[in-house]
Amino acid sequence: MGVTERPATAVFDEATAVRPAGPGRYQVRPDERFALVAPGGVTPPAVNGGVMVATVLRAVMDTSPHPYPVATSAHFLRVPQLEPAEVEVTWLKHGRTAATARAALIQDAQVVLDVTVTTGGLPEGPGAIADGELTWTGDPPNLPPIEECVNLGPWRGTVGTDGTAGYAAHVDVRMDPATTGWRRGEPSGIPEMRGYFSLRERRDPDAYLLALAVDALPPVVFGLGAAGWAPTVELTWHMRAVPAPGPLIVAARSRHVSGGWFDEEAEVWDAAGRLVAQSRQIARVGRSSRPRA
Amino acid sequence: MGVTERPATAVFDEATAVRPAGPGRYQVRPDERFALVAPGGVTPPAVNGGVMVATVLRAVMDTSPHPYPVATSAHFLRVPQLEPAEVEVTWLKHGRTAATARAALIQDAQVVLDVTVTTGGLPEGPGAIADGELTWTGDPPNLPPIEECVNLGPWRGTVGTDGTAGYAAHVDVRMDPATTGWRRGEPSGIPEMRGYFSLRERRDPDAYLLALAVDALPPVVFGLGAAGWAPTVELTWHMRAVPAPGPLIVAARSRHVSGGWFDEEAEVWDAAGRLVAQSRQIARVGRSSRPRA
Repeated sequence: MGVTERPATAVFDEATAVRPAGPGRYQVRPDERFALVAPGGVTPPAVNGGVMVATVLRAVMDTSPHPYPVATSAHFLRVPQLEPAEVEVTWLKHGRTAATARAALIQDAQVVLDVTVTTGGLPEGPGAIADGELTWTGDPPNLPPIEECVNLGPWRGTVGTDGTAGYAAHVDVRMDPATTGWRRGEPSGIPEMRGYFSLRERRDPDAYLLALAVDALPPVVFGLGAAGWAPTVELTWHMRAVPAPGPLIVAARSRHVSGGWFDEEAEVWDAAGRLVAQSRQIARVGRSSRPRA
Repeated sequence: MGVTERPATAVFDEATAVRPAGPGRYQVRPDERFALVAPGGVTPPAVNGGVMVATVLRAVMDTSPHPYPVATSAHFLRVPQLEPAEVEVTWLKHGRTAATARAALIQDAQVVLDVTVTTGGLPEGPGAIADGELTWTGDPPNLPPIEECVNLGPWRGTVGTDGTAGYAAHVDVRMDPATTGWRRGEPSGIPEMRGYFSLRERRDPDAYLLALAVDALPPVVFGLGAAGWAPTVELTWHMRAVPAPGPLIVAARSRHVSGGWFDEEAEVWDAAGRLVAQSRQIARVGRSSRPRA
């Protein structure tokens, strides 16, 4: 997983690019390169939710008075089509400590993704703690070394029958083997996923890549024997620090599954061992789920 | 804490009432009875954030096609004034499984609270699990019996010097003694709060009371020696089941405190032992904090 092996392409930055189209308006395009292409073919393939949030965040940060998206809440209303869309940004407050904007991804005059973002300042590095400042962090996740992890590769459900490469062709996910039993039909019985995450291309983590990282692993309910696409209904994530270069560690779990709903909480730690992002989403258990007795 | 001792008033329902004022518009009034009245006097006293969210939720649920607010994300932009305000509700989607609305609490033509709500169906009771449905729940919080807990009473910072009773006069919070050392200047060093929560008046929990419960305990950073009002910047909560009558258990913790920001995650369990709500907020460490060395 050495950095030098990675191609210097810009697939992620292209896929999340925004083009100004008037005051508070940006042209974007959901990108098939980050779509989860189901075998047999869902129409349309669903682009990873984190990638869509990253796209909206680029539009918001373009005019933010503060440097980082501290709190981003996103409600997913419709499956984005792989065609041009528009992001609309409206600032509700420009404060000294925080600023808040509403943003929406719109296609065919309908809101696909509704987002509210509060931006602010964050610790820039390990030496950025002010004198006498209150700091505290919980225990980090416990993963085996990356060499002992399972390279998920282009897993089932992410490459089309026509050979089209989607999401899994552009991310590099190395899973803690304790959370990969579902791949051989032996789910652990615990809704947890842990792994190292980076792009296959050479690119350091930043706010936009964190927006993807919090939604990058297979759904935690795979650990309970569920299968199939688990559509996110709402996802909120908090950026807590500026990430160091290198692969990210993502640890996700659920606390409650019932009524067809499950929560998924993820923490993202950077290569320097700092907690850099937290998220919780609520999602629907996939239709093709086969619960264990 | 017997139910029969409690007065049959309706302070909470009055404080969160909404009055229709045209299509998608409601008149409301932030209520001093749920304000955190600081000794010495902050102007204006800040009404508990959960009470404000409950007020907005009443307006949203008035026209929701689904019965429960499954996902509510709220960004707190300004301190509400204790004077009339308006809630504006706009529906973005009416789907079969979920519907989504944007709502805003507005005073003096400015957004005070920006909220997005996705509504849907939820398990109605312990027998509401469909055959073959995937269900799973993590371990419940571990609290001593309610008789062994600390009655927080009208704690410092919640009753005005003029004797005005605010927030603490209307809620009944019984804290796990392990999380109350901060009251005698001996914080535990762990950012956790656990306690039983109900109103002082006789009222069973529902979605609106859950919106208050997730933000009902003292800030978790009091466990680290912080003090003073810790303003919520963003709070998202998920309703997971319809709560049974009786006191709620609230367990809150933080995972990371730095740069003046802290996260607070709360779980709410009902008297029947079911996980009924989850939340995470990001807030500012209070200005009067005295971090421990």
